[in-house]
Amino acid sequence: MIRHMVLVGVGLIGGSFALDLKRQGLVERVTGVGRTPENLATALQLGIIDATADDLGAVAADADLIMLAAPVGAMPGLFARLATVLPDDCLVTDVGSTKQDVIAAARAALGARIGRFVPGHPIAGAETSGAAAARSELFVDKPLILTPLAENQAVDIETIDQLWQACGARVTRMDAALHDSIFAAVSHLPHLLAFALMDELAARPLSELYFRYAGAGLRDATRIAGSHPEMWRDITLANRDALLDELDALGEKLRAVRGLIADRDGRALEQVFSRARQARTDWLQGKYNND
Amino acid sequence: MIRHMVLVGVGLIGGSFALDLKRQGLVERVTGVGRTPENLATALQLGIIDATADDLGAVAADADLIMLAAPVGAMPGLFARLATVLPDDCLVTDVGSTKQDVIAAARAALGARIGRFVPGHPIAGAETSGAAAARSELFVDKPLILTPLAENQAVDIETIDQLWQACGARVTRMDAALHDSIFAAVSHLPHLLAFALMDELAARPLSELYFRYAGAGLRDATRIAGSHPEMWRDITLANRDALLDELDALGEKLRAVRGLIADRDGRALEQVFSRARQARTDWLQGKYNND
Repeated sequence: MIRHMVLVGVGLIGGSFALDLKRQGLVERVTGVGRTPENLATALQLGIIDATADDLGAVAADADLIMLAAPVGAMPGLFARLATVLPDDCLVTDVGSTKQDVIAAARAALGARIGRFVPGHPIAGAETSGAAAARSELFVDKPLILTPLAENQAVDIETIDQLWQACGARVTRMDAALHDSIFAAVSHLPHLLAFALMDELAARPLSELYFRYAGAGLRDATRIAGSHPEMWRDITLANRDALLDELDALGEKLRAVRGLIADRDGRALEQVFSRARQARTDWLQGKYNND
Repeated sequence: MIRHMVLVGVGLIGGSFALDLKRQGLVERVTGVGRTPENLATALQLGIIDATADDLGAVAADADLIMLAAPVGAMPGLFARLATVLPDDCLVTDVGSTKQDVIAAARAALGARIGRFVPGHPIAGAETSGAAAARSELFVDKPLILTPLAENQAVDIETIDQLWQACGARVTRMDAALHDSIFAAVSHLPHLLAFALMDELAARPLSELYFRYAGAGLRDATRIAGSHPEMWRDITLANRDALLDELDALGEKLRAVRGLIADRDGRALEQVFSRARQARTDWLQGKYNND
């Protein structure tokens, strides 16, 4: 049972986490910290938080759990603020989409108390954002990845693990570098592609006609281009090296496909398309589930 | 009222068209022609067609409407088959995703009777295929583009227009070259991207982990990679020149984004992401509707 959780960043993910813990009676009181007073007011009104604070430092001293649900670019500043005020018995966790950079920021600021930070990442994004987008049961049956540190106590990892399980998430643990490599490929690269495709089409002279006739294919393929620009700026920069590799690999692949089209190699094109379709079918039919 | 429609290719699009016309009493009898006996048997069972035929040539003589709903790569062969047997009072139309190549095939085969062919394209694709995927009302509120020929009679264009309107489609008419240019950008390029991305990820050593943790973002971004490989091979080759240009433009765009990441230019990245999000919001909020 958490007595007082300080939630930094009361958006889709942080807000939904708070709602679930409250509904289950696992947290007594939630204080929301954020940059946008209107968003905090909405969160208060929706019962996501019980109080607000302008400054993390002012409320951290009284917290037993601090959840950092802000864009990953804000993490260094937040950890720096925590460095001087973090109580000894307070756990810190996060929901950042990248882990190595957040861990590095925590390590730089917290020093010997780095063991109080248990890094996490729920796979439950959406193109909506803000407190108004939060909803209970968002995490049911979704993967939640913990990337524990050598300095973490087993009991602290277990506490965070249990909170997420209470939200219905399927918790797994893995190395932070592996995490970042996986999500560069399956999340960050597809986001970049969707953003780039939309921005490219919107800038064309024919864009008005394009969007008049575009169908469900483009709509779904670019759903994630509706994601939060600042959050994705931070993720992109945080996972920079892996993403440069991913862009290079995809560029190579697109050049190969271009070559097949230029050569009118219908047989090879059909093979690419068939393999892609089969892989997607296997995936969605649950071939890779870890249950 | 159509007395006898011959439907070549009894799949999602052709089958749904037949269902709608039947339900509205606009066609008396439908004969299905296709390569797969099992699919034709399913279509018979579902009441999509009333009879089957192995050979288009054998039934075309008795048709007053021939709907070509086969992959665009099959069109030259189908028009060649029609050349010698097409009755003078029979209209031909199609649902091909590319128009210039289908028109060229029709022109080559039909010669002076090219005016009997009224080219069309409904924007109602899905990643499902086959007669079992057909359903009535698929075309309600979906765009249907006619690319009429100089040789068409106004009354014949109007007949095809009315049939699609009866299916609930929003019919517009445009030049075939403009059509192909628009759909290279908003449909064919996104399909190629989705196929390439899935095939790239599936070939990696980490693919099993990728698909274990991939979320809704990748699922939606690659929905169209579940599309029919042969159909998309044909579309890709049919719209080859426009697609090579599209791949080059997107490659350029991705190189520019890569440069921003390499330079750690967060400000410019956020601008790209914001413009993309705004364009998508404008589109989905109906800014470009022609209603």
